[in-house]
Amino acid sequence: MPGFQTIGVITKQSDPRLADTLQTLLDFLASRSLKVLVDESAASLLKAEAAELVSRERLARDADLAIVVGGDGTLLNAGRSLADADVPVLGINLGRLGFLVDVSPEEMTARIDEILNGDYREARRFLLDAEVIRGNKVIGRAVALNDVVLHVRDVVRMIEFDTYIDDHFVNTQRADGLVVSTPTGSTAYALSGGGPILHPALDAIVLVPVCPHTLSHRPIVVKGDSRIEIRVCAHNKDPAQVSFDGQANIDLEPEDRIVIAKKPGPLRLLHPKGHDYFHILRAKLRWGEQP
Amino acid sequence: MPGFQTIGVITKQSDPRLADTLQTLLDFLASRSLKVLVDESAASLLKAEAAELVSRERLARDADLAIVVGGDGTLLNAGRSLADADVPVLGINLGRLGFLVDVSPEEMTARIDEILNGDYREARRFLLDAEVIRGNKVIGRAVALNDVVLHVRDVVRMIEFDTYIDDHFVNTQRADGLVVSTPTGSTAYALSGGGPILHPALDAIVLVPVCPHTLSHRPIVVKGDSRIEIRVCAHNKDPAQVSFDGQANIDLEPEDRIVIAKKPGPLRLLHPKGHDYFHILRAKLRWGEQP
Amino acid sequence: MPGFQTIGVITKQSDPRLADTLQTLLDFLASRSLKVLVDESAASLLKAEAAELVSRERLARDADLAIVVGGDGTLLNAGRSLADADVPVLGINLGRLGFLVDVSPEEMTARIDEILNGDYREARRFLLDAEVIRGNKVIGRAVALNDVVLHVRDVVRMIEFDTYIDDHFVNTQRADGLVVSTPTGSTAYALSGGGPILHPALDAIVLVPVCPHTLSHRPIVVKGDSRIEIRVCAHNKDPAQVSFDGQANIDLEPEDRIVIAKKPGPLRLLHPKGHDYFHILRAKLRWGEQP
Amino acid sequence: MPGFQTIGVITKQSDPRLADTLQTLLDFLASRSLKVLVDESAASLLKAEAAELVSRERLARDADLAIVVGGDGTLLNAGRSLADADVPVLGINLGRLGFLVDVSPEEMTARIDEILNGDYREARRFLLDAEVIRGNKVIGRAVALNDVVLHVRDVVRMIEFDTYIDDHFVNTQRADGLVVSTPTGSTAYALSGGGPILHPALDAIVLVPVCPHTLSHRPIVVKGDSRIEIRVCAHNKDPAQVSFDGQANIDLEPEDRIVIAKKPGPLRLLHPKGHDYFHILRAKLRWGEQP
Repeated sequence: MPGFQTIGVITKQSDPRLADTLQTLLDFLASRSLKVLVDESAASLLKAEAAELVSRERLARDADLAIVVGGDGTLLNAGRSLADADVPVLGINLGRLGFLVDVSPEEMTARIDEILNGDYREARRFLLDAEVIRGNKVIGRAVALNDVVLHVRDVVRMIEFDTYIDDHFVNTQRADGLVVSTPTGSTAYALSGGGPILHPALDAIVLVPVCPHTLSHRPIVVKGDSRIEIRVCAHNKDPAQVSFDGQANIDLEPEDRIVIAKKPGPLRLLHPKGHDYFHILRAKLRWGEQP
Repeated sequence: MPGFQTIGVITKQSDPRLADTLQTLLDFLASRSLKVLVDESAASLLKAEAAELVSRERLARDADLAIVVGGDGTLLNAGRSLADADVPVLGINLGRLGFLVDVSPEEMTARIDEILNGDYREARRFLLDAEVIRGNKVIGRAVALNDVVLHVRDVVRMIEFDTYIDDHFVNTQRADGLVVSTPTGSTAYALSGGGPILHPALDAIVLVPVCPHTLSHRPIVVKGDSRIEIRVCAHNKDPAQVSFDGQANIDLEPEDRIVIAKKPGPLRLLHPKGHDYFHILRAKLRWGEQP
Repeated sequence: MPGFQTIGVITKQSDPRLADTLQTLLDFLASRSLKVLVDESAASLLKAEAAELVSRERLARDADLAIVVGGDGTLLNAGRSLADADVPVLGINLGRLGFLVDVSPEEMTARIDEILNGDYREARRFLLDAEVIRGNKVIGRAVALNDVVLHVRDVVRMIEFDTYIDDHFVNTQRADGLVVSTPTGSTAYALSGGGPILHPALDAIVLVPVCPHTLSHRPIVVKGDSRIEIRVCAHNKDPAQVSFDGQANIDLEPEDRIVIAKKPGPLRLLHPKGHDYFHILRAKLRWGEQP
Repeated sequence: MPGFQTIGVITKQSDPRLADTLQTLLDFLASRSLKVLVDESAASLLKAEAAELVSRERLARDADLAIVVGGDGTLLNAGRSLADADVPVLGINLGRLGFLVDVSPEEMTARIDEILNGDYREARRFLLDAEVIRGNKVIGRAVALNDVVLHVRDVVRMIEFDTYIDDHFVNTQRADGLVVSTPTGSTAYALSGGGPILHPALDAIVLVPVCPHTLSHRPIVVKGDSRIEIRVCAHNKDPAQVSFDGQANIDLEPEDRIVIAKKPGPLRLLHPKGHDYFHILRAKLRWGEQP
């Protein structure tokens, strides 16, 4: 028995499809006499007595289980703030299957029931931790569950950068950008850029150049414990940026360095017992099913 | 005999490698008693007596031949302003072979000598003419020799748009952008985006999606006289932009429409007689030569 | 009024779904008092009195209209034999939409009715004509509506070959093969190999390398009247082959040359009046429809 | 000190560039008073007294170190026969840098000298072990250092197959074939087919579809200890084949199953101490070097 007594609920703000699903969820949790914490993402949608309103930090610290209701983007956002707290996370979608939010509103209460009874699978998804270094000083730091993306801002122009892996020079590229992705992110932006699918159990990071000027540049998959360093070239005139899960950004200057490595604590992602990764892959990529 | 009496010279501003090549060019033209017009791109590099300083518009109108010294980008910039004037253009590079600037500084005087004697090939390269329409009003218009590119500004985020060809709906895409390219531009940004090479003599336009979200979207090649319309979707929240040869931009709003068609007057691009397109292709793409 | 009096019917042999559709077609044509010719592809499926059994050659010569019932492969096969005879062709599928067989069994009689009344669109699809030359002798010749494909037989091994366009050397490649495709074929094997979609009205040929060893090789689109020559390298040890629409083959030896050009007479392909190429493209490639 | 006393030498048969390099190697090994074993690959090139002629099996069993002289293909062939014997292998090329044969003839004696002194790096490269199963019977078995490739024989035709990973159904594909590759093979045929580069230290296997009919199929990277099963579909009419490193083949029938897993004993590949994988990658893929 996992002993999930305190449940944190995080949602996508201001999605009109949310209210019904959230009410059903809260009613169900109340029927089980569980304590419910919500942060401000869900607060406006709830009646005062249904749950205790806390900060995201306190939710992460005090919850035994976090339930995220929304799309994959909602879970990416929540996941970055929950990984440190070692709290397991379950994703509920709003009718559209996601890679991370794989439980539909229809099956929600049945699946949560099973999970409260200890009947689930836990997948450990690692995050990336990135520092932006200017001169000798760390000027920014952020984590990503999907990807760290170097790209040019504002214009159609290439960015020039050097890549190092474990202090070995890999190459100098001119490209629209570079996606450094976890297995979790390999089915997101990295895939649009031509990267391979990495099975989520793989301990690996993929580097995918976006629209590389030299046509023989290819995605490279390296070990999960690699230290990846990207250096923006000195003569790079156009303003560049680094993005984390496409949700947070740090502006870059020429000669800035981005150092990326696996974050020590993984995200504990819960799936219903019958979860099948390849089923989701087939559904999302519209592969024909077996005849 | 082509009767090139008045020569316009256009250069890339502030390139340090330029001065020597430009001086050699001007000395050569003076030795042939030709009248030389320069616009402000070359003015700062020249002694007063070597050439007459005029506006780009007058240069385009009065020159019998325009010589562009710089990179492909310099010729793109010049080409857009010269196409209307029906003046033939010759491209001189600064040591690095270009698709458009295919004459090297070393062979420059010999090649120009031949060209003045009528010994050259003329290639007609068409341009694209694009209007940006908001509601019922044309809010911007520009031409491009390489490509018209729709893309998101500022962030790593997809743009959603509908494409129509000759008023037939093609598809709705979510992507980083869309490149609409001439054969001339097919070896530039469109190629980095995964587009095919279009032989420059082909009367065709290629549409290349950049990092499309749906993996089965592919580049489409249509007739050169097609009317291409791109409509930014109404719910597209992130600021978008359309770029012309990567050198001029117009900001877009949701529901804006971009209408693209072949510009009536082509650019008359001169090549030395032995010009071989495939030779340049092999050199630029570093294909192995025939053993 | 087109005056279609004699109708040739060609089918896919031994497809069990065929009998009903064919009977409905023959009954309909009989109700219109039209003369019907069939070749042996349809003969076994028919009662003796329903149609006159003739050779494919006579069918091509005497029919005013050919109706092909089957898949795209059936129409490719028929198309190669009908192009010379200048007989228009209509494609009926067996329940699965094709690029060429775009009329479904359900709508068949209504659409043919319209076509007999002159209410249709005619698209001219060009074919490729290829000669295989050994030494100074033509040792084989065939036509293709989709593509001429050079490939290795029997083993996983690369083939090395030189390509020339209008007698200009393009490149030497080592690859699994090379697809030389018409616009019609651009949505078939060429697409799987990474080629672009060519609009069927485009007068162009695309060359798509299959699994090229040098990663910077790319599909090239050239004018429809280009003369393409492929030379198998002398030291190429593994047995190679050239295939026409994947349906006919000629074995190759080292130093053999394949010369490919547009066949003078196009195939006249009839479509119902509402035919929309992009609709078929969306359906076949499973692009999401406009919301 | 590694104590390499008995050196096995394996070469590429009948390569004219081989004789000089081999003589230099044998002279060097003789000068060090080392015992030398050769198998028949090198026998014809040597004087009788220079080395003892043995079978490949005895060479594998008795040698402390195997030196392979040739191309990557020569080392693939040798590697498959040496992996079981746990004998370390060093690759010498014939002037053309390989991914596996990374020591040039010029530096050969200096590098071997270092290696005999214990100054080297050992990389463990895993192999794939594949069984072909017909009904309930194993009808063939082979190992591969690069890749196991399913493909159609003889014709341009797709093969249809189902893939399972650890008994989970992945998908049904129609394609020219499927490459199942080690990190070692990821820079060989898998790369031509559009696969990513896998760093050689990665414990992973990549599945790369070749010319897939459904455009959204993508390379998938899975853990090195995955069990991969490919089932040829029952209605697959064209003869298929499975190839191992492109050097050995087994013919397939409909419903045959290929079961692929990591071979327990890896190949011990020796590199000189300064070996840099990314340097070889840049050289082989002709990436521009850092300015």
